[in-house]
Amino acid sequence: MNERIVPSSIRKVYEGRIFTLQVETIALPKGDTLHAEVIRHPGSVVIVPITANGEVILVRQYRPAIGRWAWELPAGSLKHGEDIRAAALRECHEEVGLVADLLEPLGAWYPTPGYCDELMNFFRATGLRPPRADEHAQQDEDEDIEARAFSREELTKMLAAGEIIDLKTIAGLALTKP
Amino acid sequence: MNERIVPSSIRKVYEGRIFTLQVETIALPKGDTLHAEVIRHPGSVVIVPITANGEVILVRQYRPAIGRWAWELPAGSLKHGEDIRAAALRECHEEVGLVADLLEPLGAWYPTPGYCDELMNFFRATGLRPPRADEHAQQDEDEDIEARAFSREELTKMLAAGEIIDLKTIAGLALTKP
Repeated sequence: MNERIVPSSIRKVYEGRIFTLQVETIALPKGDTLHAEVIRHPGSVVIVPITANGEVILVRQYRPAIGRWAWELPAGSLKHGEDIRAAALRECHEEVGLVADLLEPLGAWYPTPGYCDELMNFFRATGLRPPRADEHAQQDEDEDIEARAFSREELTKMLAAGEIIDLKTIAGLALTKP
Repeated sequence: MNERIVPSSIRKVYEGRIFTLQVETIALPKGDTLHAEVIRHPGSVVIVPITANGEVILVRQYRPAIGRWAWELPAGSLKHGEDIRAAALRECHEEVGLVADLLEPLGAWYPTPGYCDELMNFFRATGLRPPRADEHAQQDEDEDIEARAFSREELTKMLAAGEIIDLKTIAGLALTKP
């Protein structure tokens, strides 16, 4: 009971800009048949950018899915065929405006394995510096992002006040707790 | 820049068993227009069931989306109109086979606010006991679930070995760390 179960049929119902939605028919070992609605996602990177004095940089943007603005760790989807470290450096540069000279993997976890194969790859980013003239970054056209550094005390208060609203941010902060 | 932005159009592209997928057109304050692919989800509960001697009960099931079996905290989607506490008690009973006499809210977070409005409501469940004869639970027909209690030491080893693969489980364990 450890092996992958090959779906007996796969029906693609939507092909989107970021993910694909399909219905997969699976025969479970006990004999039941499952029609799983599955979102195929390219995976993503989550960056915990830590400044020289131990502050953590969060970004604020509008999240249409939940209808609100939120302070979160910088993150983004992998582009087709992109290496995860390259994606982490790119997102840090695009969203925070800084280049990370050191990137350390913290682990990778699925946020919603019940219906989506997105794997979030977490990195600690340090040695942050402004980009040189030859280091360009391209913000996505739909990104309207503000970046700010917070002390751990400020973050603890924001957590207690319910101002950190997403799981990747509480997980990333917990993983890098000094 | 704190207010909800009302979409100028919403196009439903798929209505599933658990969630709905729609494309929403949003005008951002800076003037850009965003076509957001949004998954509308009823929300869910995540339970951290803790036994009298401090062990945590995880459940193992097949996850078609990621093609593997995984040990996770018990969790499940809210049924239409269901109260979140009632849902937490129901999922604990259905997946773990035990009734929780005490349920404490730990907070609620969005696992993937970039494209999905699922809100995960976390609860610590204690005072676990076998159901009485008049307390029935109905397993979903597609659930093929094994439950087991793990000590914190075992969980630490599983985490280090990469055997805990989902974000809600690492978050729920961190939130209830003794």
